[in-house]
Amino acid sequence: MSQDKPQLHLGAFMRPVSIHTGAWRYPGAFADANFNFGHLRDFTRTLERGCFDAFFMADHLAVLNMPTEALKRSHTVTSFDPLTLLPALATATERIGLIATASTTFEQPYHVARKFASLDWISEGRAGWNIVTTSNPDAALNFGMDDHMEHGERYKRAREFFDVVTGLWDSWADDAFVRDVDSGLYFDPARLHTLNHKGQYLSVRGPLNIARPVQGWPVIVQAGASEPGRQLAAETAEVIFGAAGTIEDARSFYADIKARMAAVGRPPDRLKILPACFVVVGDSVEEARRRRLHLDSLVHYDSGLASLSIMIGTDASKFDPDAPLPEIPESNQSKTQRALVIAAAKEENLTVRQLAQRVGGYPGLSMVGTPRTIADQMEEWLVTKASDGFNVMFPYLPAGLDDFVNLVVPELQRRGIFRKQYTGKTLREHLGLPRPENQFFAR
Amino acid sequence: MSQDKPQLHLGAFMRPVSIHTGAWRYPGAFADANFNFGHLRDFTRTLERGCFDAFFMADHLAVLNMPTEALKRSHTVTSFDPLTLLPALATATERIGLIATASTTFEQPYHVARKFASLDWISEGRAGWNIVTTSNPDAALNFGMDDHMEHGERYKRAREFFDVVTGLWDSWADDAFVRDVDSGLYFDPARLHTLNHKGQYLSVRGPLNIARPVQGWPVIVQAGASEPGRQLAAETAEVIFGAAGTIEDARSFYADIKARMAAVGRPPDRLKILPACFVVVGDSVEEARRRRLHLDSLVHYDSGLASLSIMIGTDASKFDPDAPLPEIPESNQSKTQRALVIAAAKEENLTVRQLAQRVGGYPGLSMVGTPRTIADQMEEWLVTKASDGFNVMFPYLPAGLDDFVNLVVPELQRRGIFRKQYTGKTLREHLGLPRPENQFFAR
Repeated sequence: MSQDKPQLHLGAFMRPVSIHTGAWRYPGAFADANFNFGHLRDFTRTLERGCFDAFFMADHLAVLNMPTEALKRSHTVTSFDPLTLLPALATATERIGLIATASTTFEQPYHVARKFASLDWISEGRAGWNIVTTSNPDAALNFGMDDHMEHGERYKRAREFFDVVTGLWDSWADDAFVRDVDSGLYFDPARLHTLNHKGQYLSVRGPLNIARPVQGWPVIVQAGASEPGRQLAAETAEVIFGAAGTIEDARSFYADIKARMAAVGRPPDRLKILPACFVVVGDSVEEARRRRLHLDSLVHYDSGLASLSIMIGTDASKFDPDAPLPEIPESNQSKTQRALVIAAAKEENLTVRQLAQRVGGYPGLSMVGTPRTIADQMEEWLVTKASDGFNVMFPYLPAGLDDFVNLVVPELQRRGIFRKQYTGKTLREHLGLPRPENQFFAR
Repeated sequence: MSQDKPQLHLGAFMRPVSIHTGAWRYPGAFADANFNFGHLRDFTRTLERGCFDAFFMADHLAVLNMPTEALKRSHTVTSFDPLTLLPALATATERIGLIATASTTFEQPYHVARKFASLDWISEGRAGWNIVTTSNPDAALNFGMDDHMEHGERYKRAREFFDVVTGLWDSWADDAFVRDVDSGLYFDPARLHTLNHKGQYLSVRGPLNIARPVQGWPVIVQAGASEPGRQLAAETAEVIFGAAGTIEDARSFYADIKARMAAVGRPPDRLKILPACFVVVGDSVEEARRRRLHLDSLVHYDSGLASLSIMIGTDASKFDPDAPLPEIPESNQSKTQRALVIAAAKEENLTVRQLAQRVGGYPGLSMVGTPRTIADQMEEWLVTKASDGFNVMFPYLPAGLDDFVNLVVPELQRRGIFRKQYTGKTLREHLGLPRPENQFFAR
């Protein structure tokens, strides 16, 4: 592998195991994949064989707030708690990173700090924390709140929460535990720091009742889409996961984040931007597209129509389902996603029905083609600084995941832009991130 | 195994791995056992070889509030978060139950319900929830509270918390997930219940975003020592774990709890009483006692003196450390523990120093002897209805645990009072407890 080439980082977006709402009906797919532990364990082992940087688990703190008619068709309705699943996967694997989502709005920082520190010890340095502020208003109702916390407030609390959690992780110097059997000294009290945090949103005394994590701090992951989200990410994140549109928009986002990092004095290589990417592999581009069309056709038409109508800002049920999409007026909806979807419809000559099912399946960034065309696209994103890699979403399980690991990964490796084996042991090492110094103790 | 004999149930009290503060210094002991995952995994596999009902993990939500002089000598100062550790142990074992502590005072019921449901699925029905109200006032300071919630309030909240968690577990009928690939129906909305709980302490809408646990509900465990604790346990618990004194006191506690159960209409066999018991095994009683004295001698004398002074209600530092304990006046301290300790000192001719180190090590119920004498004691407790078994505490690891599994378990099996192999798969089956019906859906 040439050391001169930039290196791709790959996460696997695994909650739900496939984002696509038709996935569980695809021929050969495991209908219960999202909450069958044995399947998840096998998927993770396959990802590890493919040298993925990390298994990434998003989360929701409520049953998704969809209309029952759509909800009852969705395999995403339930899932394991991420911080309960990942320790179980840790003992079933050896190298792959394990990133779990935890909410700064509905969690307590002492619990979050302790659980991630525990996961980092149990996995020997493979934990990452995806910091979310939780945008689902139904979640508030599960946590005794009538009103959801306002967006700006959520981000202020998130920033303070981050400071408390990282402060708790630094409670113990790395060398605090001397365990001197002869003298009977278990730890050196001078190497223990009590945080005594009293802030606007949180009051936490500390110290944490677990040793400093193997990685110092587990890797910090964020989505960073909104203005306060971008700023929080530039100041604190080490990985950005998020939805992406066109490659041009991604380059502009990438440049913006790296500039914000420079403005706060952080070296730009201390943060990896890994947008979500839905990948369908075939022996030919046509076959891959046929597979996707088949998958899309398993989305219930009514659900798809509702999603399409929202996206294009007009009631799509008035259109002939078996004709192409007519010209439609401009709307206030996200122009990027709308433009992408309309462009795809034209390029693939999709009918309104097919387009609705596309949107109801997964409308975001996708790469659909052969291992070579997918690798071409990924390489272009990498070398033109649109991203540092991807969080790959698989269309159906296990076949879509197997195809990626068996076919796309070797092509990326052949080009010298992806590792052929793990060279490090920790998630930080996979991502090329340094181990943070303890803020309270010099080495 | 005769089916006529009552059957012993054994849990392993594993947080800390040894309660004894000298354990980490014992010859051959793993000084880091309490937070070395590999050791904990191996211990759990040994327990499973010994057919233990469950691995039981108590918890603290703060660094223990001891004076620094004692704290710095304690291996109990840190531990893994129980609900992060147990999923990792679940994938390393096949049959043993996994009981984790979670606090009703410092946790949210939605998280608790979801995490235990996840653990129950991942372990295929081996989860138990030890409900605690958390008596450590230092914990409050780690969760944004200046004052610790008053004891009676804590129990009222605990009862409501239990109702919410069990209500959330019953969100989905056992047959809710139909996953009909042809019609595209993933679940039957008529088999989903939204809790809509609004009570004195908690407001939780639901439904839970994970299927009903394998066991219906994970096994409910409580300590049940105080008056409200006993009542809560009689109404809701399926296992009582707690400290015990003399066998007479234990019989009276046992009778009290079973009478309270009858008063609320619960069959008495729906709850197993398993007091904590510290067990030291030797080839002779003398050897076992020597081992314990050696272990006690590793407790720092000052720490021991402080504990002894509190227990006997008088300053023990005024006594000659190398003479027997003089007659001491009555005090307000717990008569049971005090009487036990003073009786032990007389029987074993302990000096004040040895007694202080005994109390600083572990002063509660202990069985110290040969496999035969220990089995005699356990059988007597079982057949005279002082308990349904024990939560065994090991004096040092790994040897103390290995001795129990290799020497005491076969003796119990030979007598026909303990299983020779697991006959069930779930923790409920090990304990002989029925699977609860769903309160919202008939089968």
